[in-house]
Amino acid sequence: MSFAELWRELEPLGRDPGTGGYRRYSWTAADAQCRAWFTRHAERLGLAVEPDNNGNLWAWWGNARENAIVTGSHLDSVPDGGGYDGALGVASALAAVEILKDKNFYPERALALALFTEEEGARFRVPCLGSRLMTGAIDPETARGLTGDDGVTLAAAMAAAGADASLLGPREDLLESMAAFVELHVEQGRGLAPMGAALGLAEGIWPHGRWRLVFSGRADHAGTARFADRNDPMLPYASTVLAARRVAAEHGALATFGKVIAEPGGANGVSSAVIAWLDARAPDEEALADTVAEVRSAAEFSCAEHGVALSVRPESYTPVVRFDQGLRDWIAGVLEAAGVKAPVLPTGAGHDAGVLAARLPTAMLFVRNPTGVSHSPAELADLADCEAGVRALALILEDLAR
Amino acid sequence: MSFAELWRELEPLGRDPGTGGYRRYSWTAADAQCRAWFTRHAERLGLAVEPDNNGNLWAWWGNARENAIVTGSHLDSVPDGGGYDGALGVASALAAVEILKDKNFYPERALALALFTEEEGARFRVPCLGSRLMTGAIDPETARGLTGDDGVTLAAAMAAAGADASLLGPREDLLESMAAFVELHVEQGRGLAPMGAALGLAEGIWPHGRWRLVFSGRADHAGTARFADRNDPMLPYASTVLAARRVAAEHGALATFGKVIAEPGGANGVSSAVIAWLDARAPDEEALADTVAEVRSAAEFSCAEHGVALSVRPESYTPVVRFDQGLRDWIAGVLEAAGVKAPVLPTGAGHDAGVLAARLPTAMLFVRNPTGVSHSPAELADLADCEAGVRALALILEDLAR
Repeated sequence: MSFAELWRELEPLGRDPGTGGYRRYSWTAADAQCRAWFTRHAERLGLAVEPDNNGNLWAWWGNARENAIVTGSHLDSVPDGGGYDGALGVASALAAVEILKDKNFYPERALALALFTEEEGARFRVPCLGSRLMTGAIDPETARGLTGDDGVTLAAAMAAAGADASLLGPREDLLESMAAFVELHVEQGRGLAPMGAALGLAEGIWPHGRWRLVFSGRADHAGTARFADRNDPMLPYASTVLAARRVAAEHGALATFGKVIAEPGGANGVSSAVIAWLDARAPDEEALADTVAEVRSAAEFSCAEHGVALSVRPESYTPVVRFDQGLRDWIAGVLEAAGVKAPVLPTGAGHDAGVLAARLPTAMLFVRNPTGVSHSPAELADLADCEAGVRALALILEDLAR
Repeated sequence: MSFAELWRELEPLGRDPGTGGYRRYSWTAADAQCRAWFTRHAERLGLAVEPDNNGNLWAWWGNARENAIVTGSHLDSVPDGGGYDGALGVASALAAVEILKDKNFYPERALALALFTEEEGARFRVPCLGSRLMTGAIDPETARGLTGDDGVTLAAAMAAAGADASLLGPREDLLESMAAFVELHVEQGRGLAPMGAALGLAEGIWPHGRWRLVFSGRADHAGTARFADRNDPMLPYASTVLAARRVAAEHGALATFGKVIAEPGGANGVSSAVIAWLDARAPDEEALADTVAEVRSAAEFSCAEHGVALSVRPESYTPVVRFDQGLRDWIAGVLEAAGVKAPVLPTGAGHDAGVLAARLPTAMLFVRNPTGVSHSPAELADLADCEAGVRALALILEDLAR
């Protein structure tokens, strides 16, 4: 079965007919469909599919469970996300195994495909939750209690999907069984197109995090409360949005408010509270800390002006990631020998590979994104580039698992 | 049954245990409970309760249906609204009738209590919907198709509650049967407290309206899209919030953004769109038009800067209301004769009385709000002031219906 055929089956799952974007949230019906698709094809290829205790799926080639070369990505999406983010890495992993099977390759070392859960944090607000649980980067008790906008805890969502959250926790044995992890991913940005390269290798991931800001004011009547008597949290929120853009630009960083909730949300009332999420990323941790501190100062200043209280709570934080240089150079050599050009790029996007990089040699292979747009229904990759990615991944796995 | 006893029964209906605020949205279970409470007490007092074709309830004292004196208000609320807004006028109307019954008064002219539906526009976005339908200020076909955030149309919501939206439409006969309408309402603002007055009379209502602004940008990845490549609608939205406050203050007007929806709403994505509602009010129509035009200009300017498209659509508009001076002077005389002080005040809040004022002599009686806070769980009125309101309303009805 070709990559294109695999892709055609995956494409409609969890796609919203109105927006054309994906809503593959973890532990929902769409998620179950995606898992079933992965399991069906992995088993068709003769791999043994095993769920782990953290909600991730593992498809093993061969019986060995040590010194393994692992590839894979995730199938969950941001709200109205694109079709390639995560999914391309999973489909490419299956297609690469099929190429190797077709040429009667048999891995000397164990080879596994990993499907990580809740990479986007779209439902439970902590990105890379599956890999964070596995590496012990998040406490299982904290994870069980995480809730999304619907108020459902991770524990309850897992139970509803037939999984057991009481088993969540680090898996040193699984980490020790892995020799290297390679994640193929659609490029999120437009670095490769101007270089005329279909593929790229990740240098590292900018440190990044998510902060929840609660601006607490006092509800009032929009038609009668004088401005002087108001404590309207929407005003300091608005000032903070503008400050975040200015401050981040000064530091060569990125800062975004993409999620905001006004409470109680009546059109003819002053808000009692505005809850907003700051996503911030920077080339280094000092620039990130400075950016967040200055956004916070600006928010505090504006809150004081309006008699509004502010609380700021980090929801997730990922330090700078530098992918293993030895593994990257090795992969670059394999690709170069096959005549494949793959320039090295940094990225601001978080990935399970970034979490795993703290524990084992890890690399990322990017597939060109012609527009650079991601986390959007407009996200795109050319089929020819995807196929080049599959062939490159097959080459890499063949070389590493030999 | 005293006002306090009536009030104690009404108080828990539709109240959210978490916030302490009311969520009495029209055609919901909470709304049905409120209607049942009204019907039960009106019938206990011997009034004949009749629903009209627009979802309003009418409780008639006596068989005549002409030259009627009508009082009443609404029981629906804004999200997490206070307990007094609307409800105080309905409970006071019932309690006033009880006072008149207790003293064996019998009205020479017809007397009716009215319960208007969807006064706040909290569910279907058009405030005073019940009185607008009755007066023909909104087209029935438009009204049937109104939807709330849940996507349910008014027609479907009415059908689910056992009402028939195909009958919606103006009621000239009902309007012609009314000689005057008097609405008692909690003050929304803090005008009476400094004057030491428990009660006040409305001079008029500021012209006001609601505009829906859609800022359309392009979804993207918060970690990878460069600022220069973004079309982030959150930035012009934030600029517009700040501009609205500045512009309104310059015009002696009010402008508020209390409802905002970021789409798709992912914390790690640039928004594809931000939808926000501007509530604006001013002492006169020219100041209101200027305020809205200048807010719109500011929004357009900021949208152009960020490559974001803007659409602005009015959702409701109420021209300036001047309540009937003859009726007000008459009422002032009745109260003065009883030793009750009731200074005359303007207000920025819309009311069914404001809609009806275009068609018949209409007056409003305000009950002191000690903090001025409204559209909030913190909304308050002293029991003694409420009881003074009930006695005053009884005096007014007795005098007018005699």
